[in-house]
Amino acid sequence: MKTEVAETAAQNRASAIPAHMKAWVLDGPDQLRLTEKPVPEPGPAEALVRVHAVALCGSDLEIISTGSPALIQGGLPFNKNWTPGHEYMGTITKLDPGVDEYRVGQRVAVEIHAGCGRCERCRMGMYTSCLNYGMNYGEHNKGHRANGFTTDGGFAEFAINHVNTLVPVPDGMGDEEATLIVTGGTAMYVLDTLGGLVAGASVVVIGGGPVGLMCAGFAKALGADPVILTDISDSRLKLALKLGADYAINVKCEDPVEAVKRLTAGKGAHYVIECSGADVLNQALEMVNRGGSICMAAFSHHPVMFDAMKLVSNNVSMYGIRGEGRSNVRRAAAIMKQRRFDARLIHTHTFKLEELPTALKYARERIEDAIKVVVRVREA
Amino acid sequence: MKTEVAETAAQNRASAIPAHMKAWVLDGPDQLRLTEKPVPEPGPAEALVRVHAVALCGSDLEIISTGSPALIQGGLPFNKNWTPGHEYMGTITKLDPGVDEYRVGQRVAVEIHAGCGRCERCRMGMYTSCLNYGMNYGEHNKGHRANGFTTDGGFAEFAINHVNTLVPVPDGMGDEEATLIVTGGTAMYVLDTLGGLVAGASVVVIGGGPVGLMCAGFAKALGADPVILTDISDSRLKLALKLGADYAINVKCEDPVEAVKRLTAGKGAHYVIECSGADVLNQALEMVNRGGSICMAAFSHHPVMFDAMKLVSNNVSMYGIRGEGRSNVRRAAAIMKQRRFDARLIHTHTFKLEELPTALKYARERIEDAIKVVVRVREA
Amino acid sequence: MKTEVAETAAQNRASAIPAHMKAWVLDGPDQLRLTEKPVPEPGPAEALVRVHAVALCGSDLEIISTGSPALIQGGLPFNKNWTPGHEYMGTITKLDPGVDEYRVGQRVAVEIHAGCGRCERCRMGMYTSCLNYGMNYGEHNKGHRANGFTTDGGFAEFAINHVNTLVPVPDGMGDEEATLIVTGGTAMYVLDTLGGLVAGASVVVIGGGPVGLMCAGFAKALGADPVILTDISDSRLKLALKLGADYAINVKCEDPVEAVKRLTAGKGAHYVIECSGADVLNQALEMVNRGGSICMAAFSHHPVMFDAMKLVSNNVSMYGIRGEGRSNVRRAAAIMKQRRFDARLIHTHTFKLEELPTALKYARERIEDAIKVVVRVREA
Amino acid sequence: MKTEVAETAAQNRASAIPAHMKAWVLDGPDQLRLTEKPVPEPGPAEALVRVHAVALCGSDLEIISTGSPALIQGGLPFNKNWTPGHEYMGTITKLDPGVDEYRVGQRVAVEIHAGCGRCERCRMGMYTSCLNYGMNYGEHNKGHRANGFTTDGGFAEFAINHVNTLVPVPDGMGDEEATLIVTGGTAMYVLDTLGGLVAGASVVVIGGGPVGLMCAGFAKALGADPVILTDISDSRLKLALKLGADYAINVKCEDPVEAVKRLTAGKGAHYVIECSGADVLNQALEMVNRGGSICMAAFSHHPVMFDAMKLVSNNVSMYGIRGEGRSNVRRAAAIMKQRRFDARLIHTHTFKLEELPTALKYARERIEDAIKVVVRVREA
Repeated sequence: MKTEVAETAAQNRASAIPAHMKAWVLDGPDQLRLTEKPVPEPGPAEALVRVHAVALCGSDLEIISTGSPALIQGGLPFNKNWTPGHEYMGTITKLDPGVDEYRVGQRVAVEIHAGCGRCERCRMGMYTSCLNYGMNYGEHNKGHRANGFTTDGGFAEFAINHVNTLVPVPDGMGDEEATLIVTGGTAMYVLDTLGGLVAGASVVVIGGGPVGLMCAGFAKALGADPVILTDISDSRLKLALKLGADYAINVKCEDPVEAVKRLTAGKGAHYVIECSGADVLNQALEMVNRGGSICMAAFSHHPVMFDAMKLVSNNVSMYGIRGEGRSNVRRAAAIMKQRRFDARLIHTHTFKLEELPTALKYARERIEDAIKVVVRVREA
Repeated sequence: MKTEVAETAAQNRASAIPAHMKAWVLDGPDQLRLTEKPVPEPGPAEALVRVHAVALCGSDLEIISTGSPALIQGGLPFNKNWTPGHEYMGTITKLDPGVDEYRVGQRVAVEIHAGCGRCERCRMGMYTSCLNYGMNYGEHNKGHRANGFTTDGGFAEFAINHVNTLVPVPDGMGDEEATLIVTGGTAMYVLDTLGGLVAGASVVVIGGGPVGLMCAGFAKALGADPVILTDISDSRLKLALKLGADYAINVKCEDPVEAVKRLTAGKGAHYVIECSGADVLNQALEMVNRGGSICMAAFSHHPVMFDAMKLVSNNVSMYGIRGEGRSNVRRAAAIMKQRRFDARLIHTHTFKLEELPTALKYARERIEDAIKVVVRVREA
Repeated sequence: MKTEVAETAAQNRASAIPAHMKAWVLDGPDQLRLTEKPVPEPGPAEALVRVHAVALCGSDLEIISTGSPALIQGGLPFNKNWTPGHEYMGTITKLDPGVDEYRVGQRVAVEIHAGCGRCERCRMGMYTSCLNYGMNYGEHNKGHRANGFTTDGGFAEFAINHVNTLVPVPDGMGDEEATLIVTGGTAMYVLDTLGGLVAGASVVVIGGGPVGLMCAGFAKALGADPVILTDISDSRLKLALKLGADYAINVKCEDPVEAVKRLTAGKGAHYVIECSGADVLNQALEMVNRGGSICMAAFSHHPVMFDAMKLVSNNVSMYGIRGEGRSNVRRAAAIMKQRRFDARLIHTHTFKLEELPTALKYARERIEDAIKVVVRVREA
Repeated sequence: MKTEVAETAAQNRASAIPAHMKAWVLDGPDQLRLTEKPVPEPGPAEALVRVHAVALCGSDLEIISTGSPALIQGGLPFNKNWTPGHEYMGTITKLDPGVDEYRVGQRVAVEIHAGCGRCERCRMGMYTSCLNYGMNYGEHNKGHRANGFTTDGGFAEFAINHVNTLVPVPDGMGDEEATLIVTGGTAMYVLDTLGGLVAGASVVVIGGGPVGLMCAGFAKALGADPVILTDISDSRLKLALKLGADYAINVKCEDPVEAVKRLTAGKGAHYVIECSGADVLNQALEMVNRGGSICMAAFSHHPVMFDAMKLVSNNVSMYGIRGEGRSNVRRAAAIMKQRRFDARLIHTHTFKLEELPTALKYARERIEDAIKVVVRVREA
């Protein structure tokens, strides 16, 4: 009953879509400007989402400073009136008439990538590896979207999402936690890539940022044993233990390779997940056991030295993953719905939309041990 | 009829097993000595193989110079009366009574690794990643064998093989070609690891040594299109074309990354197979397309610089493989039986058992464009 | 040079697209009528294909008699001016401007299914299992197409194809052989589903119709050993041997289960492929070895009795497959390009477009041992 | 400290291994006799387990009545002094000297199958599909063991286990719960076979016996949503809800196919697990969605009618699984260690070793709603 009332109210609100909205746009490197833009119209198979909250991700910091790897409209993403932000959630406000998978008023989280649906990778379900990445403009519009990367994102009051990039927010989950669903999707994509069934396997996570922490939480939720997280920050290590990690190793105090050997009866771990972006690949190779696998989920910005011999002689597999592919955002939402671990602990700070620059500063400089910083676009 | 006669003759010969045999043993780095050893006795689930021919592999050269990565009997492999050599074939001469999978007189090729059968990897079929690698001696004998690496190998008149390391030689295949079956097993393990079904996919092989050439031959036999091999030797490139490669690129004449882009409509290849042991990992990363895979099948002996960012942003998988795992030697034999390509072309030189040092010199220095050098232990 | 001339000519022809075309439409059960229809226009991501040749498939016979399982426009496919026919090939004559993957004048074969791209199955690459099957009309148009099943097919001078359902015809392949590419796609989907790497595995094909014969040909081309085909027709069995089967068993003369046991050293086969549509599932279960797999690729029209106990106690997997999914049409084209076996032998009869009813009669009644009957829409 | 004391005590007890033990043997159909037997000696890679508790399984009932499918020592299992019972746990009492993976005094649960390690299936890790099933006797002893099926089992004071069939009991888990680890191994093998990552997928379990209940518990623990269990017993349905099922359907009150459609938005379930042994295969086919999978985990004893057409047209996969393969017993122990659901609720009755016939009667006739009946061999 209550739900119905709420939905009706939501639909009423939805019906009052303004013509313009507040949105941040990127003028130059690290030059964001809050402006007004027309509220966009959903095209075929698309929805208009009224953004409630949007979390900041390391790649936001990067893209705002240096631009997207896949350039917007064939040039740098600067001075294009382009809006970044990709970890958002909100309420569906308008739908293309062909969309019956969702309804107006429904709370949704997002995934970033909508593939073109026609390249070799998309045809096989690997839509985050779309060969037409970035092609959503002009003559050769193939329909690829990576919201907040190559198409407008969520640092705004409204955003457009292809139906493939929506996932319902589980009942009872707050807005801030819901922004973590897409982060959880990356963590689940890691575990999916590593084989899916991690129960009983030993898992090391290098780096206790949001993705690393989610990896630890999900790995434990799915039965990995032990789950070991390494970092240099005691507050993040403490949090890792709260989220389910069995061991948290401060690499300033203990050699992480030795720690992993000690905790795995000398054998090394079945799976090592690299979430730090640091030059730790050889460390990962020393940690993983013969026949084991490494997944790299963080962008690192310098070439790393790498003992290729070890990869071969130990029959190790190494996976780079991009984003939150193969429908793992939905898997993440399903597990988060069960509250196996309290993902809300990862969220440390909240700012208003107008305060985005401050929010970015907190995220970049890890002020007050900031982990996940969320910008609220609407009042709760 | 003819076969039966041949078999009876074989069995008669088999019945006359001498007490001693000629065998090369490794006294020190690069110090091989031809000596006499007792002919070994097959234990449970084992066969005695009368060696006919044994091919030289790059890892023979290495192990003879610097020792095995997995040490023999807990020490360097020197001065242990230990016999290297692992790419051999011959005739079954004696069988443990419990073995009914083979019969005396049968011609067999070998694979190298017999797993312990009880570690986590062996239990899941990954016997070349056995966690008890090298443990075939003393108190903690777990039964692992890597013939020619950690247990006696084939530079001798007789060798012991666990039943799991035997594969019948197809009718009509000569001894020298049959020594290539195990090499083919590595090539098939590469293709298996890359997904198995390479038909219609673009495949680049870096390095035209025996494993690289077999990869090219098998990839084409299984329908890959195009198959591109890169090397610096014109004779090997020419051979690659004969074995089925569609394109052979001399990297001294053309940038291999540009060549691959040109031959794959700018997209890059689905699969890149590294068989050179050189520092070409970044090259491989430039060649492979988004979502594609790289397999490393060669031991390289120096750390390589590696653009980890590319692996992540392009969602690339990278597999190190060891040996010829997951029953791929049998697959290789089945395809070679069909003579899709003439693997005999890879075999360039033959020597007698007594001439092993000369044979090794030819292989090491690539004298007369040597590719696969075979030592004949018995007259044909 | 020659090719360029041919292409220019093709483009010229292409430019002269008529307003109307001949097309067969289905008025009632088995009531086909040759009529005139407007030549359709390609929509977004679509091509107009000038049909050269179209092969008849068992499901054509069925759909013409009883209608499609997925009904056209929410009703029986009768009296809708609907054109069946799905195994066609031809020349691209017009392209949606957004399509740069193909060019006008290019010869193409087709696959049947274009998924909606937005259901759970399509998102994971299983577009032949699209949950929006048949939804290409009216309000809830999700964009699914199964040409000749739920959307207009190839018994006409022109047909519309989504870019995802096109595959280039290899150079030098004739029109009739090219109509078999889609059949080959089903055979490859079978092998893909069974694990991909069939080299060295024993494969039984039950039923020597076009799909069964292609399965035998592809399995052998990919190194399966032995390949055994069973049927009741000596002419089809003879053909199976020509296409690469090692053994052809006439089930009227020999019990097929005993034959398979005899030819697999008593163990049974690794893979059994059911292509007959007959009540042979228990036979397949008797033929397959412990841990083996069965793939069902034929529609059967009566419930079958089935020893479920055997499936469980022998740890057998059983796959029903629909169509030619997971990009296997492209794989098929790549292998057929290599001419490992002469697929043209499967094509036995040719008729003109006007003779479609006679062609169907030949196919249905297997007149003159008809196997694959092709209707030529254009002169060669 | 406490643990050390307990272990020392255990080792002392272990040192006092008697020469004889109580054991039930099978004289004829349903004719069990309690007798004395010599305590067996562990062979290579084996352990002697002092049995603490053994649970009854449906296949015990069957094998005791009609004999094992794989006959003991080449004949019926009757009058061979053979001891059934396979779901046991206990303490390691003696070890072959080569075993260092376990220690005397360690509490262990078991899995049933030790493969031969040398057939094609075992070589690929499918040891429950061993092609040498039952061959542990006489001339052709290949080393396969299926304790309680083809080799002596656990209705006795001691039992022999190959090191591959042992798994440590998690700390703090009671004996009765530990007997369920092997049942959990079957449930995890089901989920592994269905793809591993069931998070977010809809799962139907048909039949609320111990395996079905464990499937429901594990599926939910791994994030499946919703989990639906069907049965005819209200007490079992109630239990299913306690173990994590979202919905429990009494098929006497509601058509289960309609219920599943209702609970899955009309689409059907991603996965259907058949644990009832009843003739419900067509029901499963109606429940599963296009592209979905069915796993059969129960032995059924009558041929079932089966709509093969549906399997094909809906692209459904169907897996028969035997036992608890691919190391899933270890996975089950890892999840049970986390107490996601209270598996102890499945255990309803306890009897003494001497009371085995009564225990079997309770299990067979489901007296007092018996689900899992446990026989305690030692006092707790």
